[in-house]
Amino acid sequence: MALIVKKFGGSSVANAERVFNVANRIIEDYKEGNDVIVVVSAQGDTTDDLIEKALEINPTGASKREMDMLLSAGEQISISLLAMAIEKLGFPAKSLLGWQAGFQTDSHHTIARIKNINTERIKNEIAKRNIVIVAGFQGLNKYDDITTLGRGGSDTSAVALAAALKADLCQIYTDVDGVYSADPRKVPNARKMDEISYDEMLELATLGAQVLNNRSVEMAKKYNVELEVLSSLEKKPGTIVKEIVKMEKTLIKGVAKDNNVARISIVGLQDTPGIAFKLFNKLAQYKVNVDIILQSVGRHGTKDITFTVPKDQALLAKEAIDSLEGSLNFQEVSIDETISKVSIVGAGMESHPGVASKMFEALCDAGINIQMISTSEIKISVLIDVKYADKAVEAIHEAFLNYL
Amino acid sequence: MALIVKKFGGSSVANAERVFNVANRIIEDYKEGNDVIVVVSAQGDTTDDLIEKALEINPTGASKREMDMLLSAGEQISISLLAMAIEKLGFPAKSLLGWQAGFQTDSHHTIARIKNINTERIKNEIAKRNIVIVAGFQGLNKYDDITTLGRGGSDTSAVALAAALKADLCQIYTDVDGVYSADPRKVPNARKMDEISYDEMLELATLGAQVLNNRSVEMAKKYNVELEVLSSLEKKPGTIVKEIVKMEKTLIKGVAKDNNVARISIVGLQDTPGIAFKLFNKLAQYKVNVDIILQSVGRHGTKDITFTVPKDQALLAKEAIDSLEGSLNFQEVSIDETISKVSIVGAGMESHPGVASKMFEALCDAGINIQMISTSEIKISVLIDVKYADKAVEAIHEAFLNYL
Repeated sequence: MALIVKKFGGSSVANAERVFNVANRIIEDYKEGNDVIVVVSAQGDTTDDLIEKALEINPTGASKREMDMLLSAGEQISISLLAMAIEKLGFPAKSLLGWQAGFQTDSHHTIARIKNINTERIKNEIAKRNIVIVAGFQGLNKYDDITTLGRGGSDTSAVALAAALKADLCQIYTDVDGVYSADPRKVPNARKMDEISYDEMLELATLGAQVLNNRSVEMAKKYNVELEVLSSLEKKPGTIVKEIVKMEKTLIKGVAKDNNVARISIVGLQDTPGIAFKLFNKLAQYKVNVDIILQSVGRHGTKDITFTVPKDQALLAKEAIDSLEGSLNFQEVSIDETISKVSIVGAGMESHPGVASKMFEALCDAGINIQMISTSEIKISVLIDVKYADKAVEAIHEAFLNYL
Repeated sequence: MALIVKKFGGSSVANAERVFNVANRIIEDYKEGNDVIVVVSAQGDTTDDLIEKALEINPTGASKREMDMLLSAGEQISISLLAMAIEKLGFPAKSLLGWQAGFQTDSHHTIARIKNINTERIKNEIAKRNIVIVAGFQGLNKYDDITTLGRGGSDTSAVALAAALKADLCQIYTDVDGVYSADPRKVPNARKMDEISYDEMLELATLGAQVLNNRSVEMAKKYNVELEVLSSLEKKPGTIVKEIVKMEKTLIKGVAKDNNVARISIVGLQDTPGIAFKLFNKLAQYKVNVDIILQSVGRHGTKDITFTVPKDQALLAKEAIDSLEGSLNFQEVSIDETISKVSIVGAGMESHPGVASKMFEALCDAGINIQMISTSEIKISVLIDVKYADKAVEAIHEAFLNYL
């Protein structure tokens, strides 16, 4: 007998038929004697429909407190319907809103962080052998106001609950059947992995393989919650995400691309001490998320600094740089939004120099020019022209096929 | 400066335009320095849509606990949208769910009764000069489960809140502009009343003039909450419902009909002691709501007993009577569902015998046969053929026009 937390996304409960499909999955585990807690998102398009209603009232953005009040109604609908379906199938279920399930958060409406989960109510319901259906994405702040956790919040709810209850497993059901070495819709040879470490999963998530929300993986790593990413449609094992301590060999876990990248180059920076600090400190003040940074020696004793930011922060970054006029001397700033970041991820690659050169060779053979390179302990990223992004992923994947 | 509770129904907030219309009505009172608390129902068809979703999952009826969880999402949507509209217009608003507003109920899911309202949170918000928007129809039981108050629950929420806060006035906005002496769609001369007593309003409500929910009028009477029934579309005074102590003259307040009536006649009852007790005790056990009762002497030393019940309870009543076979001897039972109850309501009529005869005269002149008569201190009801119901209301209204 185990304690299992299961999370189903909005598309998994989009209509009555799917709700029953999910209910049956839950009941299977329950019938085996397990304690089952289920975290659910709002049905299909509910959240979008509610946002639409808010925009009709205030197109420039309603207050965040009231947005949280509005959007949290979405999960309220899905949890009650799922509980009804389980009851209809003859099993005991209780739906609980975020606050009823004990989710206490800070007061940052629409992007709240979980501070604590008071699990008393859930434990009581489990003790009565009820299947507990919890509204994901939502909690309550210290003023008794409803908060939401932001994008991917239901994943975070599920992992936090698994951590608080010391669950044996946290299963995240999605529309794919696991974590792949590359996007299986683009790369025919993409391989599903049986296991992956938290760090590798984090790198893949950051790189645009949007299977799991980053915050939830970070939390799973912190509290050592074993995750399984699996399909809500087919019944087969998914990918286990857990701490993998010993790496016997280089394991390239995946190839991913991220097209949401802009490259900003500052050319001809006057080479005085502290200019990098000045620049990146200012960017931090403007809340620009800088990713890769490259500094090189320019002509006539100047420096060039190039860095990448998410596309939608490019203008903000430019503004930050412009605000330094006078204290920062340079020749010009250019922004390039036609690039993609393609990366391979795998623990242990820092001790295998051959990995990088193999990746570069694959790109060279495919006739793709590398604009920038960045490496970490478990990741090698290159910036290339966006029009070659899919081609690059396929070429690299092909090259590493034997490792995958 | 006054403390005003305003209640708007679902059609008043059915779309963005109407939400702004309501917001403007609220702001007018707020700008005059009043403290304003607003109770809102779910938007337009939201509740029906949610019920539809539940029926897709369980056509034979989902558990009441989960129905309450589901349906209470409806007001959550409307309160947040209304708060957003008020904020958009530049005024401070806070939406509160039933439990946040302190509504504590018993545990009878879908038909819960309010036990107490903890007004601390609302008072705090008012003290900060916030316009408070409260979700009607919902509360929380002692197990921290969401409950709903049943049909007309938002009216009850508003009156209960007005009572708990000792509000100066409780305004119930509807799609009519007040309480009329007859249905204004059917009777052209129907007159709007400026004032009406709680008891008269209760009689009218019971008789099918569905302007105000009965429970809310009973509660208003109990706690002496002054009500105003008024239009959410036009801006003009409505009808005040309050305790009217001294009646200087007979005031016929209205004429109403109720077609949801079935008449059950038991003919040729053997005349032994206690048969009425036996019969109505059994009907009470079957939870049949008996309205008018008439007992008359039949032929050969037998009795006839005739009574009315709501149409949908006629078969239940028949079942109750059949269960008495053996202990109750009678010749036959007949059910007539083609009748209507037409009534006039007005305090003080018991001391004016002319009222009844005037009513009967009006019906006689219109060629309408009276099947049964029942009177109370403030009401005279007659049972007639349902096909003459509208004609009867018009004839009676015409006869009493000078009194109205």
